[in-house]
Amino acid sequence: MQNDKRPRLAIDMDEVLADTHQKFLALYHQDYGIAMDIYQEPGKELHENLPDHLREQWKVYIHQKGFFRDIPPMRDAIETVKALQERYNVYVVSAAIEFRNSLEDKLDWLDEHFPFIPWTNILFTGEKIIAADVMIDDRIKNLAHFQGRKLLYTSPHNVLITGYERVNSWRDVAELLL
Amino acid sequence: MQNDKRPRLAIDMDEVLADTHQKFLALYHQDYGIAMDIYQEPGKELHENLPDHLREQWKVYIHQKGFFRDIPPMRDAIETVKALQERYNVYVVSAAIEFRNSLEDKLDWLDEHFPFIPWTNILFTGEKIIAADVMIDDRIKNLAHFQGRKLLYTSPHNVLITGYERVNSWRDVAELLL
Repeated sequence: MQNDKRPRLAIDMDEVLADTHQKFLALYHQDYGIAMDIYQEPGKELHENLPDHLREQWKVYIHQKGFFRDIPPMRDAIETVKALQERYNVYVVSAAIEFRNSLEDKLDWLDEHFPFIPWTNILFTGEKIIAADVMIDDRIKNLAHFQGRKLLYTSPHNVLITGYERVNSWRDVAELLL
Repeated sequence: MQNDKRPRLAIDMDEVLADTHQKFLALYHQDYGIAMDIYQEPGKELHENLPDHLREQWKVYIHQKGFFRDIPPMRDAIETVKALQERYNVYVVSAAIEFRNSLEDKLDWLDEHFPFIPWTNILFTGEKIIAADVMIDDRIKNLAHFQGRKLLYTSPHNVLITGYERVNSWRDVAELLL
Protein backbone atom coordinates (compact mmCIF):
# COMPACT_ATOMS: atom_id res chain seq x y z
CA MET A 1 0.00 0.00 0.00
CA GLN A 2 1.23 3.47 -0.85
CA ASN A 3 0.14 4.86 2.53
CA ASP A 4 2.21 2.17 4.21
CA LYS A 5 4.59 3.56 6.85
CA ARG A 6 7.41 1.13 6.03
CA PRO A 7 10.25 2.46 3.85
CA ARG A 8 9.94 1.51 0.19
CA LEU A 9 12.55 -0.95 -1.04
CA ALA A 10 12.85 -1.35 -4.84
CA ILE A 11 14.54 -4.56 -5.98
CA ASP A 12 15.76 -5.39 -9.50
CA MET A 13 15.13 -8.81 -11.10
CA ASP A 14 17.92 -9.92 -13.47
CA GLU A 15 21.19 -10.66 -11.66
CA VAL A 16 19.57 -9.68 -8.36
CA LEU A 17 16.45 -11.81 -7.76
CA ALA A 18 17.04 -14.02 -10.81
CA ASP A 19 20.29 -15.71 -11.77
CA THR A 20 20.03 -14.71 -15.44
CA HIS A 21 23.78 -15.20 -15.83
CA GLN A 22 23.32 -18.94 -15.10
CA LYS A 23 20.58 -19.17 -17.71
CA PHE A 24 22.87 -17.67 -20.37
CA LEU A 25 25.70 -20.04 -19.42
CA ALA A 26 23.37 -23.03 -19.61
CA LEU A 27 22.23 -22.01 -23.11
CA TYR A 28 25.77 -21.40 -24.41
CA HIS A 29 26.72 -24.81 -23.04
CA GLN A 30 23.71 -26.58 -24.50
CA ASP A 31 23.81 -24.91 -27.93
CA TYR A 32 27.56 -24.40 -28.51
CA GLY A 33 29.40 -26.59 -26.00
CA ILE A 34 30.90 -23.55 -24.30
CA ALA A 35 32.16 -24.49 -20.83
CA MET A 36 29.71 -23.49 -18.10
CA ASP A 37 32.57 -22.07 -16.04
CA ILE A 38 33.71 -19.69 -18.80
CA TYR A 39 36.17 -17.21 -17.30
CA GLN A 40 34.50 -13.91 -16.42
CA GLU A 41 36.91 -11.07 -16.93
CA PRO A 42 36.18 -8.50 -14.24
CA GLY A 43 34.22 -5.52 -15.52
CA LYS A 44 33.15 -7.17 -18.75
CA GLU A 45 29.70 -8.24 -19.85
CA LEU A 46 29.22 -11.98 -20.23
CA HIS A 47 28.99 -11.74 -24.04
CA GLU A 48 32.33 -9.91 -24.17
CA ASN A 49 33.98 -13.08 -22.84
CA LEU A 50 32.58 -15.23 -25.65
CA PRO A 51 34.17 -16.09 -29.01
CA ASP A 52 33.61 -13.39 -31.64
CA HIS A 53 30.96 -15.30 -33.58
CA LEU A 54 28.76 -15.64 -30.48
CA ARG A 55 28.92 -12.07 -29.19
CA GLU A 56 25.49 -11.15 -30.54
CA GLN A 57 23.80 -14.44 -29.59
CA TRP A 58 22.62 -13.09 -26.21
CA LYS A 59 20.29 -10.72 -28.07
CA VAL A 60 18.66 -13.70 -29.79
CA TYR A 61 18.23 -15.54 -26.48
CA ILE A 62 16.88 -12.61 -24.53
CA HIS A 63 14.10 -11.92 -27.04
CA GLN A 64 12.90 -15.54 -27.10
CA LYS A 65 9.58 -16.41 -25.47
CA GLY A 66 10.34 -18.50 -22.41
CA PHE A 67 13.87 -17.17 -21.79
CA PHE A 68 12.87 -15.49 -18.53
CA ARG A 69 10.42 -18.18 -17.39
CA ASP A 70 12.79 -20.82 -15.97
CA ILE A 71 15.68 -18.83 -14.55
CA PRO A 72 16.91 -20.04 -11.15
CA PRO A 73 16.29 -17.60 -8.30
CA MET A 74 19.46 -16.18 -6.71
CA ARG A 75 20.64 -17.99 -3.61
CA ASP A 76 18.87 -16.85 -0.43
CA ALA A 77 16.79 -14.31 -2.38
CA ILE A 78 13.36 -15.78 -1.60
CA GLU A 79 13.84 -16.15 2.15
CA THR A 80 15.52 -12.75 2.47
CA VAL A 81 12.87 -10.87 0.53
CA LYS A 82 10.19 -12.54 2.64
CA ALA A 83 11.98 -11.37 5.80
CA LEU A 84 12.50 -7.88 4.35
CA GLN A 85 8.74 -7.49 3.84
CA GLU A 86 8.30 -7.30 7.60
CA ARG A 87 10.27 -4.05 7.70
CA TYR A 88 10.03 -2.72 4.15
CA ASN A 89 7.35 -2.14 1.56
CA VAL A 90 9.06 -4.28 -1.08
CA TYR A 91 8.65 -3.48 -4.79
CA VAL A 92 10.12 -5.47 -7.68
CA VAL A 93 11.27 -3.09 -10.42
CA SER A 94 12.52 -4.64 -13.65
CA ALA A 95 13.50 -2.78 -16.83
CA ALA A 96 11.47 -5.32 -18.82
CA ILE A 97 9.78 -3.03 -21.34
CA GLU A 98 12.74 -3.31 -23.74
CA PHE A 99 11.87 -7.01 -24.16
CA ARG A 100 8.23 -7.46 -25.21
CA ASN A 101 8.43 -11.24 -24.93
CA SER A 102 9.73 -11.09 -21.37
CA LEU A 103 6.68 -9.44 -19.81
CA GLU A 104 4.39 -12.44 -19.27
CA ASP A 105 7.35 -14.71 -18.45
CA LYS A 106 8.59 -12.34 -15.76
CA LEU A 107 5.14 -12.03 -14.23
CA ASP A 108 4.70 -15.82 -14.20
CA TRP A 109 8.21 -16.28 -12.76
CA LEU A 110 7.45 -13.89 -9.90
CA ASP A 111 4.15 -15.64 -9.30
CA GLU A 112 5.99 -18.97 -9.01
CA HIS A 113 8.97 -17.93 -6.87
CA PHE A 114 7.76 -14.80 -5.07
CA PRO A 115 3.98 -15.33 -4.74
CA PHE A 116 4.03 -13.24 -1.55
CA ILE A 117 4.74 -10.09 -3.60
CA PRO A 118 1.35 -8.70 -4.72
CA TRP A 119 0.79 -7.31 -8.25
CA THR A 120 0.50 -3.84 -6.74
CA ASN A 121 4.22 -4.02 -5.91
CA ILE A 122 5.54 -5.03 -9.33
CA LEU A 123 6.77 -2.49 -11.90
CA PHE A 124 8.07 -3.15 -15.41
CA THR A 125 9.88 -0.09 -16.60
CA GLY A 126 11.98 1.55 -19.17
CA GLU A 127 13.96 4.01 -17.08
CA LYS A 128 13.52 3.44 -13.35
CA ILE A 129 12.02 6.81 -12.40
CA ILE A 130 11.00 5.39 -9.04
CA ALA A 131 10.10 7.16 -5.79
CA ALA A 132 11.46 4.83 -3.10
CA ASP A 133 13.82 4.83 -0.12
CA VAL A 134 16.24 2.04 -1.02
CA MET A 135 17.08 0.51 -4.40
CA ILE A 136 19.04 -2.70 -5.02
CA ASP A 137 20.29 -3.05 -8.61
CA ASP A 138 23.30 -4.40 -10.50
CA ARG A 139 23.25 -1.58 -13.09
CA ILE A 140 24.48 1.88 -12.15
CA LYS A 141 22.40 3.37 -14.96
CA ASN A 142 19.39 2.48 -12.81
CA LEU A 143 20.95 3.71 -9.56
CA ALA A 144 22.61 6.89 -10.81
CA HIS A 145 19.53 9.15 -10.78
CA PHE A 146 17.79 7.47 -7.85
CA GLN A 147 17.23 9.79 -4.87
CA GLY A 148 17.33 7.20 -2.06
CA ARG A 149 19.94 4.78 -0.69
CA LYS A 150 21.61 2.85 -3.47
CA LEU A 151 22.90 -0.71 -3.08
CA LEU A 152 24.92 -2.06 -6.00
CA TYR A 153 24.42 -5.82 -6.23
CA THR A 154 27.72 -7.33 -7.34
CA SER A 155 27.82 -8.94 -10.78
CA PRO A 156 30.92 -9.68 -12.93
CA HIS A 157 30.17 -6.71 -15.18
CA ASN A 158 30.17 -4.19 -12.31
CA VAL A 159 33.07 -5.33 -10.09
CA LEU A 160 35.38 -2.51 -11.21
CA ILE A 161 32.86 0.18 -10.36
CA THR A 162 33.63 2.20 -7.22
CA GLY A 163 31.71 4.82 -5.28
CA TYR A 164 28.64 2.71 -4.52
CA GLU A 165 27.57 0.88 -1.38
CA ARG A 166 27.87 -2.72 -2.49
CA VAL A 167 26.22 -6.04 -1.63
CA ASN A 168 27.76 -9.32 -2.78
CA SER A 169 24.93 -11.64 -1.80
CA TRP A 170 21.47 -11.74 -0.26
CA ARG A 171 23.17 -12.47 3.07
CA ASP A 172 24.88 -9.10 2.71
CA VAL A 173 21.50 -7.50 2.03
CA ALA A 174 20.04 -9.17 5.13
CA GLU A 175 22.93 -7.95 7.28
CA LEU A 176 22.59 -4.38 6.02
CA LEU A 177 18.81 -4.03 6.03
CA LEU A 178 17.48 -6.43 8.67
CA MET B 1 16.92 10.19 -20.83
CA GLN B 2 17.02 10.47 -17.06
CA ASN B 3 19.62 13.25 -17.18
CA ASP B 4 17.27 15.20 -19.43
CA LYS B 5 16.69 18.78 -18.19
CA ARG B 6 13.02 18.84 -19.22
CA PRO B 7 10.44 18.27 -16.47
CA ARG B 8 9.12 14.71 -16.34
CA LEU B 9 5.48 14.32 -17.33
CA ALA B 10 3.83 10.98 -16.46
CA ILE B 11 0.69 10.17 -18.48
CA ASP B 12 -1.81 7.40 -17.77
CA MET B 13 -3.20 5.18 -20.57
CA ASP B 14 -6.80 4.04 -19.95
CA GLU B 15 -9.32 6.89 -20.10
CA VAL B 16 -6.46 9.35 -20.73
CA LEU B 17 -4.50 8.29 -23.82
CA ALA B 18 -6.88 5.46 -24.71
CA ASP B 19 -10.68 5.68 -24.88
CA THR B 20 -11.20 2.43 -22.98
CA HIS B 21 -14.73 3.54 -22.10
CA GLN B 22 -15.64 3.45 -25.82
CA LYS B 23 -14.25 -0.07 -26.13
CA PHE B 24 -16.42 -1.30 -23.26
CA LEU B 25 -19.51 0.37 -24.75
CA ALA B 26 -18.83 -1.22 -28.13
CA LEU B 27 -18.56 -4.67 -26.54
CA TYR B 28 -21.73 -4.29 -24.45
CA HIS B 29 -23.53 -3.17 -27.62
CA GLN B 30 -22.16 -5.99 -29.75
CA ASP B 31 -22.67 -8.79 -27.20
CA TYR B 32 -25.83 -7.69 -25.34
CA GLY B 33 -27.49 -5.00 -27.46
CA ILE B 34 -26.94 -2.39 -24.75
CA ALA B 35 -27.29 1.10 -26.23
CA MET B 36 -23.92 2.70 -26.95
CA ASP B 37 -25.06 5.93 -25.34
CA ILE B 38 -25.96 4.30 -22.03
CA TYR B 39 -26.56 7.03 -19.45
CA GLN B 40 -23.51 7.61 -17.30
CA GLU B 41 -24.55 8.57 -13.80
CA PRO B 42 -22.00 11.09 -12.54
CA GLY B 43 -19.51 9.58 -10.12
CA LYS B 44 -20.32 5.97 -10.97
CA GLU B 45 -18.18 3.40 -12.73
CA LEU B 46 -19.44 2.29 -16.13
CA HIS B 47 -20.37 -1.17 -14.84
CA GLU B 48 -22.50 0.35 -12.08
CA ASN B 49 -24.80 1.74 -14.78
CA LEU B 50 -25.40 -1.68 -16.32
CA PRO B 51 -28.19 -4.17 -15.59
CA ASP B 52 -27.42 -6.37 -12.58
CA HIS B 53 -26.59 -9.49 -14.57
CA LEU B 54 -23.86 -7.64 -16.51
CA ARG B 55 -22.11 -5.89 -13.63
CA GLU B 56 -19.23 -8.38 -13.52
CA GLN B 57 -18.86 -8.71 -17.29
CA TRP B 58 -16.20 -5.96 -17.47
CA LYS B 59 -13.83 -8.25 -15.54
CA VAL B 60 -14.22 -10.89 -18.24
CA TYR B 61 -13.57 -8.38 -21.03
CA ILE B 62 -10.58 -6.73 -19.41
CA HIS B 63 -8.73 -10.04 -18.94
CA GLN B 64 -9.22 -11.13 -22.56
CA LYS B 65 -6.23 -11.15 -24.91
CA GLY B 66 -6.77 -8.41 -27.45
CA PHE B 67 -9.01 -6.20 -25.30
CA PHE B 68 -6.43 -3.42 -25.07
CA ARG B 69 -5.11 -3.81 -28.63
CA ASP B 70 -7.75 -1.96 -30.66
CA ILE B 71 -8.92 0.81 -28.35
CA PRO B 72 -9.38 4.19 -30.06
CA PRO B 73 -6.93 6.87 -28.91
CA MET B 74 -8.52 9.79 -27.09
CA ARG B 75 -9.29 12.81 -29.24
CA ASP B 76 -6.28 15.12 -29.75
CA ALA B 77 -4.09 12.89 -27.57
CA ILE B 78 -1.53 11.95 -30.23
CA GLU B 79 -0.89 15.47 -31.52
CA THR B 80 -0.81 16.96 -28.03
CA VAL B 81 1.61 14.40 -26.59
CA LYS B 82 3.88 14.94 -29.59
CA ALA B 83 3.86 18.69 -28.92
CA LEU B 84 4.40 18.13 -25.18
CA GLN B 85 7.59 16.16 -25.90
CA GLU B 86 9.27 19.39 -26.98
CA ARG B 87 8.97 20.77 -23.46
CA TYR B 88 8.58 17.68 -21.28
CA ASN B 89 10.26 14.33 -20.86
CA VAL B 90 7.06 12.36 -21.44
CA TYR B 91 6.53 8.97 -19.76
CA VAL B 92 3.53 6.70 -20.20
CA VAL B 93 2.65 5.06 -16.88
CA SER B 94 -0.10 2.44 -16.91
CA ALA B 95 -1.19 0.27 -13.97
CA ALA B 96 -1.14 -2.73 -16.32
CA ILE B 97 0.44 -5.35 -14.06
CA GLU B 98 -2.97 -6.33 -12.65
CA PHE B 99 -3.89 -7.63 -16.12
CA ARG B 100 -1.32 -10.13 -17.38
CA ASN B 101 -2.95 -10.37 -20.80
CA SER B 102 -2.84 -6.61 -21.29
CA LEU B 103 0.94 -6.23 -21.27
CA GLU B 104 1.81 -7.13 -24.86
CA ASP B 105 -1.38 -5.51 -26.18
CA LYS B 106 -0.60 -2.23 -24.47
CA LEU B 107 2.96 -2.22 -25.76
CA ASP B 108 1.78 -2.95 -29.30
CA TRP B 109 -0.92 -0.28 -29.01
CA LEU B 110 1.62 2.33 -27.96
CA ASP B 111 3.89 1.25 -30.79
CA GLU B 112 1.04 1.77 -33.25
CA HIS B 113 -0.38 5.08 -32.00
CA PHE B 114 2.55 6.67 -30.12
CA PRO B 115 5.65 5.33 -31.92
CA PHE B 116 7.49 8.53 -30.97
CA ILE B 117 7.53 7.44 -27.30
CA PRO B 118 10.62 5.23 -26.81
CA TRP B 119 10.53 2.05 -24.71
CA THR B 120 12.70 3.80 -22.13
CA ASN B 121 9.73 6.05 -21.34
CA ILE B 122 7.07 3.38 -20.80
CA LEU B 123 6.25 1.96 -17.36
CA PHE B 124 3.73 -0.74 -16.50
CA THR B 125 3.08 -0.61 -12.79
CA GLY B 126 1.15 -1.81 -9.88
CA GLU B 127 1.15 1.24 -7.64
CA LYS B 128 2.49 4.33 -9.40
CA ILE B 129 5.46 5.06 -7.14
CA ILE B 130 6.83 7.45 -9.76
CA ALA B 131 9.38 10.25 -9.42
CA ALA B 132 8.14 12.89 -11.88
CA ASP B 133 7.09 16.54 -12.01
CA VAL B 134 3.59 16.30 -13.46
CA MET B 135 1.14 13.39 -13.55
CA ILE B 136 -2.05 13.17 -15.63
CA ASP B 137 -4.42 10.42 -14.47
CA ASP B 138 -8.15 9.75 -14.14
CA ARG B 139 -7.78 7.83 -10.85
CA ILE B 140 -7.09 9.68 -7.63
CA LYS B 141 -5.60 6.52 -6.10
CA ASN B 142 -2.72 7.09 -8.53
CA LEU B 143 -2.50 10.83 -7.89
CA ALA B 144 -2.99 10.88 -4.12
CA HIS B 145 0.57 9.96 -3.09
CA PHE B 146 2.31 11.63 -6.03
CA GLN B 147 4.69 14.40 -5.02
CA GLY B 148 4.46 16.59 -8.16
CA ARG B 149 1.68 18.54 -9.90
CA LYS B 150 -1.45 16.44 -10.27
CA LEU B 151 -3.89 16.80 -13.16
CA LEU B 152 -7.11 14.81 -12.86
CA TYR B 153 -8.32 13.84 -16.34
CA THR B 154 -12.12 13.97 -16.28
CA SER B 155 -13.98 10.69 -16.66
CA PRO B 156 -17.60 9.91 -15.69
CA HIS B 157 -16.46 8.02 -12.59
CA ASN B 158 -14.50 10.99 -11.19
CA VAL B 159 -16.72 14.01 -11.94
CA LEU B 160 -17.88 14.37 -8.34
CA ILE B 161 -14.35 14.52 -6.96
CA THR B 162 -13.16 17.95 -5.84
CA GLY B 163 -9.81 19.29 -4.69
CA TYR B 164 -7.84 18.39 -7.80
CA GLU B 165 -6.68 20.51 -10.71
CA ARG B 166 -8.77 19.10 -13.55
CA VAL B 167 -8.46 18.71 -17.32
CA ASN B 168 -11.50 17.81 -19.41
CA SER B 169 -9.73 17.16 -22.71
CA TRP B 170 -6.33 17.09 -24.37
CA ARG B 171 -7.01 20.68 -25.47
CA ASP B 172 -7.19 21.58 -21.79
CA VAL B 173 -3.86 19.82 -21.24
CA ALA B 174 -2.31 21.75 -24.13
CA GLU B 175 -3.57 25.05 -22.74
CA LEU B 176 -2.20 24.30 -19.27
CA LEU B 177 1.16 22.80 -20.17
CA LEU B 178 2.16 24.27 -23.54
